[in-house]
Amino acid sequence: MNRGLFITFEGPDGSGKTTQIERLRSFVEKKGYDAVLTREPGGTAISEKIREIILDRNNTEMDPMTEALLYAASRAQHVAQVIKPALESGRAVICDRFIDSSIVYQGFGRKLGDCVRIINEYAVGGCFPDITFLLKVDPEIGKGRIRPDAQDRLDMEKLEYHRAVYQAYEELEKNDPDRIIGIDASRGIDEISNEIKSHIERILG
Amino acid sequence: MNRGLFITFEGPDGSGKTTQIERLRSFVEKKGYDAVLTREPGGTAISEKIREIILDRNNTEMDPMTEALLYAASRAQHVAQVIKPALESGRAVICDRFIDSSIVYQGFGRKLGDCVRIINEYAVGGCFPDITFLLKVDPEIGKGRIRPDAQDRLDMEKLEYHRAVYQAYEELEKNDPDRIIGIDASRGIDEISNEIKSHIERILG
Repeated sequence: MNRGLFITFEGPDGSGKTTQIERLRSFVEKKGYDAVLTREPGGTAISEKIREIILDRNNTEMDPMTEALLYAASRAQHVAQVIKPALESGRAVICDRFIDSSIVYQGFGRKLGDCVRIINEYAVGGCFPDITFLLKVDPEIGKGRIRPDAQDRLDMEKLEYHRAVYQAYEELEKNDPDRIIGIDASRGIDEISNEIKSHIERILG
Repeated sequence: MNRGLFITFEGPDGSGKTTQIERLRSFVEKKGYDAVLTREPGGTAISEKIREIILDRNNTEMDPMTEALLYAASRAQHVAQVIKPALESGRAVICDRFIDSSIVYQGFGRKLGDCVRIINEYAVGGCFPDITFLLKVDPEIGKGRIRPDAQDRLDMEKLEYHRAVYQAYEELEKNDPDRIIGIDASRGIDEISNEIKSHIERILG
């Protein structure tokens, strides 16, 4: 099968996704893959423009459904323009946040419910990750790791929201254990990295 | 019931919607309504920013699903921030294009299918028009009415696309005759306006 490897990272901001993604890039490259690192919301020029609207501190009057549809629009473009073509040419795509972020942040965090999953399944058009690493860290601890000057509109949301998101992530992990791998991210960088690599070794057979 | 009147106009660009909307505004004001004129995509600051992304001639690589989700996002904001509050305070909202435009332009024109209807039903959250006037004009004639300097990315689409859209509008009209009123827009302005007014008189009882 002439298809690459699609890996996504999930978990709260401050859970160490960026560091682990960099580590995993080196690893998959040693395995012979051409690696593509990307992130959501964003990843294309159009998606970046959508991202600007979503994260603009001035857009305080944004309706939760508008936000969810903008994330889905950004994702549809990202999949069509970057992820699908890369996978079709055999590359390894490592993406910082994907469909699960929308399901937990908009579906549960904003209480929009199951429509978020349905909308996003249309957006990805069948392009689901081969494996998803969920970096699990207590919501309070994750929050404390973010520098105050790096906070955007979403970071300013209440801790209660972050707790709802954390529980929703755990729910997804429980319902889809073949794809979503929970990782205890309170440990050291090397320990986490080694666990992630062992899962990649496993799925590469 | 403390609820206003929600009227939408549909039909191809160049079918005379703007003129008829202005006429209808005067009429509903004479009937005692405070009238709100609005349009899609747009109608709020956030929706206008989304509209800029959709209509940008440079965004030629935009995926059809991205476009459909952006229209839905713009609509969700428009409904939440403008249409619902106006209707709840008893106003008459006259909107240039609404959910039916997405169903025909994205669902049929871009061949995305029924998912466009599903996505947009989430976007409007139960806020459907009381009556929709579909200004029907032969696609070729409608096309000829647009000034060349007013053409944007969507106007540049092929005539075949406009024919598919026209047929899709007729399909909607046939399936929802209580809400969607087809109007022969090849006639004079007064004749069209009088027909529209008679329908408003009817639904006001």
